[in-house]
Amino acid sequence: MMNIGLLGLGTVGGGVYELINQREDMNVKYVCCLEEPQGMRAILTRDFNRIINDPEIDTVVELMGGMNPAKDYVVRAMRAGKNIVTANKLLIAECYEELTQLAIECGVIVRCTAAAGGGIPWLTAIARCNRVDKISAIYGIMNGTTNFILDMMHRKKVEFDAILRQAQQLGYAERDPSADVDGHDIRNKLIISANVAFGVSMPPSEVDVFGIRNIRQADVATFLSKGLYCKLLASSQRMGGKVTAYIEPTLVPGESPEAAVHENFNLIGYDARFAGRQSFYGQGAGRYPTAYNVVEDLLDLNQGEASFYADKADQIHISNELAASSYYVRTSKPDAWLQERTAARWGEAYITKPVTVKAMHAWARQSADPELFLAAIR
Amino acid sequence: MMNIGLLGLGTVGGGVYELINQREDMNVKYVCCLEEPQGMRAILTRDFNRIINDPEIDTVVELMGGMNPAKDYVVRAMRAGKNIVTANKLLIAECYEELTQLAIECGVIVRCTAAAGGGIPWLTAIARCNRVDKISAIYGIMNGTTNFILDMMHRKKVEFDAILRQAQQLGYAERDPSADVDGHDIRNKLIISANVAFGVSMPPSEVDVFGIRNIRQADVATFLSKGLYCKLLASSQRMGGKVTAYIEPTLVPGESPEAAVHENFNLIGYDARFAGRQSFYGQGAGRYPTAYNVVEDLLDLNQGEASFYADKADQIHISNELAASSYYVRTSKPDAWLQERTAARWGEAYITKPVTVKAMHAWARQSADPELFLAAIR
Repeated sequence: MMNIGLLGLGTVGGGVYELINQREDMNVKYVCCLEEPQGMRAILTRDFNRIINDPEIDTVVELMGGMNPAKDYVVRAMRAGKNIVTANKLLIAECYEELTQLAIECGVIVRCTAAAGGGIPWLTAIARCNRVDKISAIYGIMNGTTNFILDMMHRKKVEFDAILRQAQQLGYAERDPSADVDGHDIRNKLIISANVAFGVSMPPSEVDVFGIRNIRQADVATFLSKGLYCKLLASSQRMGGKVTAYIEPTLVPGESPEAAVHENFNLIGYDARFAGRQSFYGQGAGRYPTAYNVVEDLLDLNQGEASFYADKADQIHISNELAASSYYVRTSKPDAWLQERTAARWGEAYITKPVTVKAMHAWARQSADPELFLAAIR
Repeated sequence: MMNIGLLGLGTVGGGVYELINQREDMNVKYVCCLEEPQGMRAILTRDFNRIINDPEIDTVVELMGGMNPAKDYVVRAMRAGKNIVTANKLLIAECYEELTQLAIECGVIVRCTAAAGGGIPWLTAIARCNRVDKISAIYGIMNGTTNFILDMMHRKKVEFDAILRQAQQLGYAERDPSADVDGHDIRNKLIISANVAFGVSMPPSEVDVFGIRNIRQADVATFLSKGLYCKLLASSQRMGGKVTAYIEPTLVPGESPEAAVHENFNLIGYDARFAGRQSFYGQGAGRYPTAYNVVEDLLDLNQGEASFYADKADQIHISNELAASSYYVRTSKPDAWLQERTAARWGEAYITKPVTVKAMHAWARQSADPELFLAAIR
């Protein structure tokens, strides 16, 4: 019998509690949360020390999110010899190397399948593939909120602001939507996925990110008139010993698999030498899909899974000078750099010659135009 | 060190041999085949008894295909205490209950991930899902050859016969294409998938199957004019204690995920209570993707995987009277049954009111029209 200390009883935490309560092979002994819910079988506590000081607790499930106090609790739990299961994207992406190192030192296991892909069996599939094969690229639609917004802008011809409000009402988007629409949520998922796929530890600050906050219905109308759909795609490729990693709006042909991903679904995948292109389509977030993968992680621990997904975490720098494409750039502040690289115009917008991802994002960061929108053309 | 007897050195067998030769943790000791290839490290033999009589051999990998002598060899290997890994769809679909029972009796393991979905981590994902969740349906595009033919008929406006010849030249279709175009290959994959997902053993003869041999460019033109794409879909649903299972051409909206599956790709998935809809998109056949999953199965055995994918195989009857849809029926031999059920006409074709899958397929089987084509409308 696995004895669990559960940290956080929000959307996902409540789902995990419910799923575990239906099982015979694991038990939530403590719930550490600020709320005071009624009718719980577990011991409710606000004192995390009770959990780490209880020798019956073998596993801590961290579903508080954020860095504080989640990181402190996870580190102390690991030092106390507890295994960790978490869905905390930010924590794992920011502290990947530190936590994998600490896990080895403490002889404990950290699992975080639900942190990248919600209910999709994604990190476990990457780890499984790596046993036999070599992954050369990972890519995909990794955020349901932004996919919902973009999908509605293409299908219902509505403006960004209106559909963002609707997404907030449906509970797909947070009140502060910046983590989603500016690409930070995807960045964390991409980092975790690429770190596991390539056995590296990438510095989050080096991932080039451009979000969808500035996309307008007029941009979408232009794309559709050319048979293109705009999707917010994450990409990371291994090229020799180097790795690229970036997130940017990307124009894909209307008949590509990405264009057919609607509403808040995700489509994430890898290319591997033998297995070829393998993609996973599913609900990448939500209470039960995420809770589902937390319980799968617990079962893996219970059945003797004894390692992290990858056996190394080499510190690397990101090499986005190795990836290039043409870009759609809509700006009221064109400068000499942009005009020198312009190969065509789509209405007001500039279509560049192939430009490296690194150069394009560097230019965008220094642009004086707060309304700037850009999208890679695949 | 795992010692393997490999049966068959064709497309997949050769790929498996190559992949295993790159590994330190397993060794092909014997290859049993009719060819006499040069430069093999393994012992070549035509005498299967050498393999089962060698106590060093722990695992037999069967990649001959077909029932004879594959079944006899597999059964004898199991009786000799060898674990089995196979990609043989026909063998597993036809003898599912017998082989799972025999595995229990002999204390050996049978794995067949490559038999359903080629390089897609499909059966393993179903088994993993079943640990935590309950699958209610499986569905999808399970055959690359027929998807290639249908995709080309939609995109290149070519006739069935011409594109079948091209598929044969590309090596996507066999010289005798009936296993693919008449749906038998998909039937076997659906049976294996549904048996694992639902813990049942379904009688192959009760699966209703209608293939794509009779689809014509004029049908496709009609579908496209209505924004629909025709895909050959496999479906199996659990409804209470009953299970449906059928394969039929199906008309899906142009913006559905299935419509965006091109060339010889597959898209297969399940619906589960907590994990929601999860689909897998990838190369469902081919030398290396299939070989890849054979080696994954070997690794699972090597790492102590001790069971079949499902823990039971209840004998059931198939209940296709529980599934219904409207159908597109193009026939020169309409009869009273069809006319009574007709709700509309699309050119020459009849569009039925909702009809059960069981009734529609029964009617099709007794039709006197050898050119009959039908498709469910989703």
